Amino acid sequence: MKIILASQSPRRRELLGLMGLTDFAIIPAQGEEDLSAGLPPDKLVEALAAAKAKEVAAQADPSDVIIAADTIVTLDGKVLGKPHSGEEAFEMLRILSGRTHRVYTGVAVLQGQRLELLHEATEVVFRPLTEGEISRYIATGEPMDKAGAYGIQGRGALLVEGIRGDYFNVMGLPVCRLGQMLKAFGIVTL
Amino acid sequence: MKIILASQSPRRRELLGLMGLTDFAIIPAQGEEDLSAGLPPDKLVEALAAAKAKEVAAQADPSDVIIAADTIVTLDGKVLGKPHSGEEAFEMLRILSGRTHRVYTGVAVLQGQRLELLHEATEVVFRPLTEGEISRYIATGEPMDKAGAYGIQGRGALLVEGIRGDYFNVMGLPVCRLGQMLKAFGIVTL
Repeated sequence: MKIILASQSPRRRELLGLMGLTDFAIIPAQGEEDLSAGLPPDKLVEALAAAKAKEVAAQADPSDVIIAADTIVTLDGKVLGKPHSGEEAFEMLRILSGRTHRVYTGVAVLQGQRLELLHEATEVVFRPLTEGEISRYIATGEPMDKAGAYGIQGRGALLVEGIRGDYFNVMGLPVCRLGQMLKAFGIVTL
Repeated sequence: MKIILASQSPRRRELLGLMGLTDFAIIPAQGEEDLSAGLPPDKLVEALAAAKAKEVAAQADPSDVIIAADTIVTLDGKVLGKPHSGEEAFEMLRILSGRTHRVYTGVAVLQGQRLELLHEATEVVFRPLTEGEISRYIATGEPMDKAGAYGIQGRGALLVEGIRGDYFNVMGLPVCRLGQMLKAFGIVTL
């Protein structure tokens, strides 16, 4: 039995390490994100995580435990994905400035025929940003590979007044609940 | 002009790095913490941070900017400091289990005669812990040098259901507000 992380996110890798898991393989799912599915955010992230887990299962042994996840940022009912350009990043950060948005992460844990899903939502409060601050933040290069165009665990920490919920969920995995879920698969983190 | 961090906490060093500050000196204050001062927690952490900053100022140039901080954990009006033994750590974690406590960090920024203070409070919700989980967590060695006997940025993440407020404040520095405060001293982080 191997543990497989179906994600190439360095943040998710780091978070598994934080949980005390050191012996796991990484097989990134392609996970072509289709945000037009019309699902509410909580169901959407679970569906996307499940799809990634199933995709990677094709390359795994039935005894392997596959962990997959998907994270999205929502505001006013709209989903903010990863920005494709500096302009798009600027627009996203301008929208998030001075407001509270929600970050959803869905997690799928798959072993053979057994699939367990969960999602967790965290509210994130941005302080009001000047255009200069947004530009300087984009110049750090941090926003480009991240949903909502910021990374809370980097320079983006300077944008965030506070959160309500699981911090690690914003980084990409709801560590506390995932630890509990893995217990049911015989993987003890504490 | 140098930036001086008056703390030997590796977490605080890491957080200044996160803010984009790379060029700073470290002169740890001894900061003999006297928790019997009878001050409320918000005033207490500011007073302790100010005392540390002034202590280090004696070894600094008047143009240097000194950053000092103090973090305490409170529950039911009691202050939980750093545990002195495994037994004390066990007792603290047993008290925190399944409940919401508050973490206060006070920050002092001192340059010559100018002293600015702030404090930030963050609520932290622990999930209910079994005695086995507490024992295994103590066995990781993580609790011993930390107020409240846990580190949110380590295996302790598995204990915390969620927070309300600034996550980095729990780690030891309210990054967002400190960034704003440093601006007034001409130190631009974003």
